[in-house]
Amino acid sequence: MIYLTRRERFNAAHRMYREDWDDRRNMDFYGKCSNPNWHGHNYELFVTVKGEPDPETGILINLKEVSTIIRERITVKLDHKNINLEVPFMKGKIASTENLVRAIWKELDPDFSALGIHLHAVKIKESENNFIEYFGE
Amino acid sequence: MIYLTRRERFNAAHRMYREDWDDRRNMDFYGKCSNPNWHGHNYELFVTVKGEPDPETGILINLKEVSTIIRERITVKLDHKNINLEVPFMKGKIASTENLVRAIWKELDPDFSALGIHLHAVKIKESENNFIEYFGE
Amino acid sequence: MIYLTRRERFNAAHRMYREDWDDRRNMDFYGKCSNPNWHGHNYELFVTVKGEPDPETGILINLKEVSTIIRERITVKLDHKNINLEVPFMKGKIASTENLVRAIWKELDPDFSALGIHLHAVKIKESENNFIEYFGE
Amino acid sequence: MIYLTRRERFNAAHRMYREDWDDRRNMDFYGKCSNPNWHGHNYELFVTVKGEPDPETGILINLKEVSTIIRERITVKLDHKNINLEVPFMKGKIASTENLVRAIWKELDPDFSALGIHLHAVKIKESENNFIEYFGE
Amino acid sequence: MIYLTRRERFNAAHRMYREDWDDRRNMDFYGKCSNPNWHGHNYELFVTVKGEPDPETGILINLKEVSTIIRERITVKLDHKNINLEVPFMKGKIASTENLVRAIWKELDPDFSALGIHLHAVKIKESENNFIEYFGE
Amino acid sequence: MIYLTRRERFNAAHRMYREDWDDRRNMDFYGKCSNPNWHGHNYELFVTVKGEPDPETGILINLKEVSTIIRERITVKLDHKNINLEVPFMKGKIASTENLVRAIWKELDPDFSALGIHLHAVKIKESENNFIEYFGE
Repeated sequence: MIYLTRRERFNAAHRMYREDWDDRRNMDFYGKCSNPNWHGHNYELFVTVKGEPDPETGILINLKEVSTIIRERITVKLDHKNINLEVPFMKGKIASTENLVRAIWKELDPDFSALGIHLHAVKIKESENNFIEYFGE
Repeated sequence: MIYLTRRERFNAAHRMYREDWDDRRNMDFYGKCSNPNWHGHNYELFVTVKGEPDPETGILINLKEVSTIIRERITVKLDHKNINLEVPFMKGKIASTENLVRAIWKELDPDFSALGIHLHAVKIKESENNFIEYFGE
Repeated sequence: MIYLTRRERFNAAHRMYREDWDDRRNMDFYGKCSNPNWHGHNYELFVTVKGEPDPETGILINLKEVSTIIRERITVKLDHKNINLEVPFMKGKIASTENLVRAIWKELDPDFSALGIHLHAVKIKESENNFIEYFGE
Repeated sequence: MIYLTRRERFNAAHRMYREDWDDRRNMDFYGKCSNPNWHGHNYELFVTVKGEPDPETGILINLKEVSTIIRERITVKLDHKNINLEVPFMKGKIASTENLVRAIWKELDPDFSALGIHLHAVKIKESENNFIEYFGE
Repeated sequence: MIYLTRRERFNAAHRMYREDWDDRRNMDFYGKCSNPNWHGHNYELFVTVKGEPDPETGILINLKEVSTIIRERITVKLDHKNINLEVPFMKGKIASTENLVRAIWKELDPDFSALGIHLHAVKIKESENNFIEYFGE
Repeated sequence: MIYLTRRERFNAAHRMYREDWDDRRNMDFYGKCSNPNWHGHNYELFVTVKGEPDPETGILINLKEVSTIIRERITVKLDHKNINLEVPFMKGKIASTENLVRAIWKELDPDFSALGIHLHAVKIKESENNFIEYFGE
């Protein structure tokens, strides 16, 4: 079993808040991350897939194919966007990194499954000091 | 002459646009950076000062002092903010990194001059692939 | 289950040695890491916690809370200190990174447990080429 | 149980191809990585071993010993070499990173076993965007 | 005056040697970098341009335009190539980084001049420990 | 004119203090960096030399030669040492990075001059947030 990880990047704006809380309550709970005028990040997304390499070709999956899936399904919808307002798979969800990794998993899983590859991990590095990982359960 | 550089960081939202251009013209010129719903970055700010170290203490300036000046004058006003809407020293300016380094220079220069230290460079790294530097003229 | 990792940093001096061995035997076994005049590192500490995010708030735990726990319990006691001489939770222990990750686990575990969060991993990067991880057992 | 990771580096040339396919078919399948004139990388190799630290010495294994094993068994044979043409443990194999991590595991495992240490992971970072891991099964 | 730097990357094979020296003399002088079977690197290319930002748009030059020039003129010709055998602007030259930065300068200078922008520096990072810079004279 | 930079690393302990000040005054001025029990860093040293590459060989100077000079003159004397107590070229000097870059310049300059190469810069990165540069005057 081989684990292959691909990094892709996107820059986005977001705000941590619940619509049914007023700004004050949101600021009390989420702190400066709840600024109503938004803030943003350079997000790094790490997608790990696993499986047995094909003995004939020596590879698990073409890296370009992995990159294309991640870009088409995920980063083109996030890059230079507002995560709260514009990202289809985040509609109705709080724009936390915790929710983001799970939403990305759900988007990517069918495509990799269709290729006979198992999605193993989705990791997002929001800053050099913070990252979140999800392993599908 | 010794050159001392301090890195500080801030996360912010911004949008590239001119108010007197409509969204379409802004998008045509600035591309996805002009998204009306904003996007954002993890900005890295590098401030370089220069001077002769004090022979008695062996140092040019206390690093904590440099950090405090940059935080109070600059990063507290930028971190988790919207550069277009909320940053006093960027009011009325296009939120480009080119304008940001020059505005930061103008904010920092008097404080370092008052300490007998010369500001040498202000550099902002907007992403791992792009950075802008300004040397005061 | 979501895994959240926070990085904190500290600079410290240490020396690898057993008190009941003389300097020569220590140097023979530990090499230059046993220099009686000490040496030091910029240590990077990565603490990973895991759990189910709160559906109401979308987050596992406030990052600021994680950072505060790590700083108060760990890094304030290690930063700019001598690990052999000054760190309460390392008293009587050889100042190896192997012992450090286990001691840090023991310090942090009760605080996270009290919050209903599981400590998953403690990792210390001693240099760009070496790191040590501990998963609690 | 403690996990210790050592990073070593090597620069090498390689080409993705099957000898029994012509250049065109290789290029169709492997893309630019199959350039018959070779290309190359700065590879980063991360080797993770695990075990119980010796209570007397406080360490799992001397880092210098780990480094020496990796250098003698692996990197001296890969550094500034052509992976397809010159590396004994890659003879007859497609020069993929998937094959490389498994071959390196096979080379390193006996040496660490002989020391009573378990090899846990072999990871190769081929670029800042791609890495491959193998855990021995 | 604003300095803008763009990073682009390419992976390539090369060999340090003079055609009129035999392999032995080349190996004696260039060491393992002269391996006749090639080796390779992940090269990082940093291109710095300078000028006065346009007061109307707030920017010096569109980053996408900078990236396009570098990719079309330089990296598409170097990426996944053999620097000695396949790169038009390195024909007849020793494949040193010293020669590479100067050749890249010569390729890029006319394009930036045509845009009224001054090329300031070409820097190549061959590994995390080595880089070469050229400022045009 | 080509600028070539080589990075070397060392780990060391140090303490900021003047012998003729008591601990209290030292702590007041230098803060936690004056801890009498020492602290330490992973220092990164960047040495930049400049000159005209030899047209016959295409290189400015062999990188291995640069590395050897830096290691023999500098890092072997600093690595895993106490900068205040054990480093010949820092005897009688306050162990500041400002003093360190100037002392390193003085050590390296004759060796590079003897090779007809100009020393251009000595830079020390003490942490990811702080670095000091010296250009010889």
